[in-house]
Amino acid sequence: MNDPVVEYWFDFASPYSYPCTAHIDTLARLRGVRVLWRPMLLGPIFRAAGWQGSPFLQQPARFAWMWTDLARQCARHALPWRKPSTFPRSSLLPARIALAHCDAPWIAVFCTRVFELNFVQDADIDDVAAMHRLLGELGQPADELIAHAQSPEVKQALRAQTEYGAQRGLFGAPSFFVGDALYWGNEQLEDALDAAAYAR
Amino acid sequence: MNDPVVEYWFDFASPYSYPCTAHIDTLARLRGVRVLWRPMLLGPIFRAAGWQGSPFLQQPARFAWMWTDLARQCARHALPWRKPSTFPRSSLLPARIALAHCDAPWIAVFCTRVFELNFVQDADIDDVAAMHRLLGELGQPADELIAHAQSPEVKQALRAQTEYGAQRGLFGAPSFFVGDALYWGNEQLEDALDAAAYAR
Repeated sequence: MNDPVVEYWFDFASPYSYPCTAHIDTLARLRGVRVLWRPMLLGPIFRAAGWQGSPFLQQPARFAWMWTDLARQCARHALPWRKPSTFPRSSLLPARIALAHCDAPWIAVFCTRVFELNFVQDADIDDVAAMHRLLGELGQPADELIAHAQSPEVKQALRAQTEYGAQRGLFGAPSFFVGDALYWGNEQLEDALDAAAYAR
Repeated sequence: MNDPVVEYWFDFASPYSYPCTAHIDTLARLRGVRVLWRPMLLGPIFRAAGWQGSPFLQQPARFAWMWTDLARQCARHALPWRKPSTFPRSSLLPARIALAHCDAPWIAVFCTRVFELNFVQDADIDDVAAMHRLLGELGQPADELIAHAQSPEVKQALRAQTEYGAQRGLFGAPSFFVGDALYWGNEQLEDALDAAAYAR
């Protein structure tokens, strides 16, 4: 029998991926489920639907509500939250770093910190200095990791990962695969983890 | 102190409003919350965003997933479910009937049955014969109620209700207002009911 796993697909620009990332590691460990971190880019997914930016931008009322809802959800879970002054933020560099090190022991902390930069500290994340500082804090060789993240191989791997997700039916984030079963949205996180745990 | 209330805004064409309608009456009564039934039409809301039909239709992958997800959610709650052969169905006549009788003692049962027609029996709902049969089963004077539902006053009232919802920030269904606070989606039903109960 294999260990139960859930694939967690996310974009560092995705607001609802912030509370999801803050919780997934703990909730997965409680169930003995391993998280496979799958950074991706929502941009190409949304452009395929004919949208620029986020689908929330299609409906101003929905977009306004999203911020209210996120503040409410974060308050309920005692998560810090600040509405970002830029949305959506480019997430290219942290996505490349996370993709290249998705099995590293520090991946959960790295992803959590990047989301906090975006949605708590209201800071740019597609930023060499910010990523350099964060990787240094995690005790990693920042220069080396950033250079590698910007290599043609990693750039191409991120494009391919996004295409692979789309081929499997992914249309937004946060999303979860348990085998081929797709779960979508922060509110389906525990459904996905339960499905992974029961499938053991 | 007033009784706690939740405004439940829905469209009989909305798939996620089906499980929501099946549960709201019981879950509200458990909390001592009164449901104010607010039928509306999503068509004008979605057309304002430049969409024809449902926003799910914008992304084929999302649309395909929606049916999978609904089947999964209904199975989890032991609700019967059949994927409708027509989507979205016109919901005009039952919406007009429900609007004109939103305070009737039979409103919850009427709405539940209309959703079952659409999403269990795969039957047209914008249909005089189907509505006649249903109202008769509920012991109501069907001819009279249907004639009234088709009056210019009721037609205009449904347009006005939809516009009023949009003015208050409504962008999809199922939606819930607790005072001015908007909750959206079947998965926020209990959040909305809890907020109404706690606000007492």
